[in-house]
Amino acid sequence: MSSPLDLYECVTAQGETVRSIKAKKGSKEEVDAAVQVLLQMKLDYKRVTGQDYKAGCPPQDGVTPQDGAAPQDGEDQVDPWSVSSSSAKGVDYEKLIVRFGSSKVDQELVDRISRLTGKTPHRFLRRGIFFSHRDMHQILDAFEQQKPFYLYTGRGPSSQAIHVGHLIPFIFTKWLQDVFDVPLVIQLTDDEKYLWKDLTLEECRRFTVENARDIIACGFDVNKTFIFSDLEYMGASPAFYRNVVKVQKHVTFNQVKGIFGFTDSDCIGKISFPAIQAAPSFSNSFPQIFGDRKDVQCLIPCAIDQDPYFRMTRDVAPRIGYLKPALLHSTFFPALQGAQTKMSASDANSTIFLTDTPKQIKNKVNKHAFSGGKDTIEEHRKLGGDPDVDVSFMYLTFFLEDDEQLEKIRQDYSSGAMLTGELKKSLIDTLQPIIAEHQEKRKHVTDDIVQQFMTPRKLHFSC
Amino acid sequence: MSSPLDLYECVTAQGETVRSIKAKKGSKEEVDAAVQVLLQMKLDYKRVTGQDYKAGCPPQDGVTPQDGAAPQDGEDQVDPWSVSSSSAKGVDYEKLIVRFGSSKVDQELVDRISRLTGKTPHRFLRRGIFFSHRDMHQILDAFEQQKPFYLYTGRGPSSQAIHVGHLIPFIFTKWLQDVFDVPLVIQLTDDEKYLWKDLTLEECRRFTVENARDIIACGFDVNKTFIFSDLEYMGASPAFYRNVVKVQKHVTFNQVKGIFGFTDSDCIGKISFPAIQAAPSFSNSFPQIFGDRKDVQCLIPCAIDQDPYFRMTRDVAPRIGYLKPALLHSTFFPALQGAQTKMSASDANSTIFLTDTPKQIKNKVNKHAFSGGKDTIEEHRKLGGDPDVDVSFMYLTFFLEDDEQLEKIRQDYSSGAMLTGELKKSLIDTLQPIIAEHQEKRKHVTDDIVQQFMTPRKLHFSC
Repeated sequence: MSSPLDLYECVTAQGETVRSIKAKKGSKEEVDAAVQVLLQMKLDYKRVTGQDYKAGCPPQDGVTPQDGAAPQDGEDQVDPWSVSSSSAKGVDYEKLIVRFGSSKVDQELVDRISRLTGKTPHRFLRRGIFFSHRDMHQILDAFEQQKPFYLYTGRGPSSQAIHVGHLIPFIFTKWLQDVFDVPLVIQLTDDEKYLWKDLTLEECRRFTVENARDIIACGFDVNKTFIFSDLEYMGASPAFYRNVVKVQKHVTFNQVKGIFGFTDSDCIGKISFPAIQAAPSFSNSFPQIFGDRKDVQCLIPCAIDQDPYFRMTRDVAPRIGYLKPALLHSTFFPALQGAQTKMSASDANSTIFLTDTPKQIKNKVNKHAFSGGKDTIEEHRKLGGDPDVDVSFMYLTFFLEDDEQLEKIRQDYSSGAMLTGELKKSLIDTLQPIIAEHQEKRKHVTDDIVQQFMTPRKLHFSC
Repeated sequence: MSSPLDLYECVTAQGETVRSIKAKKGSKEEVDAAVQVLLQMKLDYKRVTGQDYKAGCPPQDGVTPQDGAAPQDGEDQVDPWSVSSSSAKGVDYEKLIVRFGSSKVDQELVDRISRLTGKTPHRFLRRGIFFSHRDMHQILDAFEQQKPFYLYTGRGPSSQAIHVGHLIPFIFTKWLQDVFDVPLVIQLTDDEKYLWKDLTLEECRRFTVENARDIIACGFDVNKTFIFSDLEYMGASPAFYRNVVKVQKHVTFNQVKGIFGFTDSDCIGKISFPAIQAAPSFSNSFPQIFGDRKDVQCLIPCAIDQDPYFRMTRDVAPRIGYLKPALLHSTFFPALQGAQTKMSASDANSTIFLTDTPKQIKNKVNKHAFSGGKDTIEEHRKLGGDPDVDVSFMYLTFFLEDDEQLEKIRQDYSSGAMLTGELKKSLIDTLQPIIAEHQEKRKHVTDDIVQQFMTPRKLHFSC
């Protein structure tokens, strides 16, 4: 009797066969024969598993089809390497919560964070930018009982061109560090970038240091923050490598194929990399900070596209005797051209970069920011604009701190009282000082300071 | 147009499909349809590549079908995890040389080693125990020109039960170190054992230290030898990890599938592990020994079953700017029960262990060593014994130093002048002092000495 997994693999292989026969312009007979086999296999699969075959969702070891299922036709595509949506409003996040099996950041959670920390919730929480979570209440329970937790976030340093969207997790993580007074580890996955991109190890190393500078400029507390490069830290910490190997032992190629869409033509480095992004979720990966404690829970603020890594991590954790990391997921930061287009670090006009001058910011917003306004002033005054598809308004929800002002802009723009040019001016006035301040702070991040943040060492925190 | 690799994968997938339909007892129509597709694909493959499709031999990046082809029906199976042969004489090594595409260690090579070092060749060379090589003449050319090279060998520390067969590469490597006066690195792949076996990291660590003790007892020079555990050294050397990642970037799952027979159900740690066994082949993995020099060539003495790792390594090396390692391959050490049976560390009677007492050695040889003798003394005296299948005689070729004495035993046994009991006594008399001496030497290997060997440090050597 074939196992469900065997059957699943057969169907997948046969599906590939059919596609390749078609790609090779095989004869109708060939295609029909192969399709016939495929249909029979799908029937077998359903008979055995009681479920329809679903590409990318193997019926296996704890990674259930419900938990992070692959997109169906017409659904948004969201994984670490590609995000796409057919709607001008961008990805449908409510649906994503259901598909990924995470929980909504609701008013009750936001209120609880506010109550426990005694602080106004960050605008990213107030406005649903960090919209989804896993086990956040568990973190708050621990905090209430004065048990320690730590933060973990990261970035793949693929280029020096960092844009404002890249800052979202760091801005929010800094706030979390401040209000909870907890240690933070920041992983720079230079090994990942080396494996995925056409870069040398030396280039990856350089981007790592440059990216660290921008991260540090966000204002992290050096006494509570450890920034590390995989290429350096893996070779500086047997404890970290031990956890990598533990994870690698408990995840199969079938699983990473299902979760990340890897294929047989991918290099073995990519295939095993997810374990390296998983390892910082476990406190004993950082003996210099936590000693050999493996019971300090981890909270990971990240964009929702990184969730597949941590679904895998949460699946593995209990099997290797560790706590599952908790997560807070953010929405995506849209490109100037609209929420359904892809931002590209190689296209300077696709968003605002941290190196932009005030003039560049002004020009980019005015020229490229997709507008929800009407074609003529008359029409706009009469019918009003649509802030839900207007990128300038979206950017303001990320960067304008004042809730009342934001609400007033929304109303005025919707009613037609505010024109697109005025809305854009608001955004320009908001972004210019933020970027200028970042550039000023970055100037003061010396090599020495980078070195301090990146040295494995004891951190200071209350619990 | 599909690439040869695409076509190869289609054929492989379709082959799996056919097998799985048969396994599921599919109808004749189903099987026929799938076979029809398979045949058509094989024709396509041949049209494009000019070669017959051969399972396990993808047509790709330098790993040609000739180089390490999978065994055909009736051929010996030789890979890092299984060695089997249907012949009482054991594996057919001449055929293996052809199949693996290596070169025979011929008299000319043995004479050249002797001439260059001014030493009598080791009995393992004189007797064809190290029977195959890759690029050994290149190593000797370098030696002649006083260019440096280094030795690399290793062991997977899966248990404390080390037997005499495990010593073969170490005995020979020590001789190479002595006559060439070169540095040596010894890799203990405790991460591999953790990934493959049902062991904890702590158990693997313990076996590593115990195994290191036995290796050190072989007499290596602490000034020229670095022994390392992967689980420790990976976390102590960014240079080592960099080389691991470089290899991992240049080897695909398809390749390790073809070379090692990995499947989709294998854990991602196994899949990426071959890069970790490859990395010590490159001198800049050991900056404490070689600085950042990447041009010190490596010579790897190992049993032939490890060759797949190094075929892969040699394929990758030029693509990442490194020298290919040279190799010297040994035959397998037979089990007492016969050359075609498998030795097992869990069966104390399958061979002589380094912890055996003189009495245990005597009993094991007398009771369990497969004999090439005849059923009755009369018959034996008349027809003589067969040393080629006699395990006691095989063991003597490994451990009896005196060539003349060995030849006399061979002749006397073949003629019937020597009885099996006498042959066994020769072996017992040879092994007892060797094992006793090893045990005595091992006693003097303190924790401090193990620590010295396993500390990354400068080594002393002439070039």
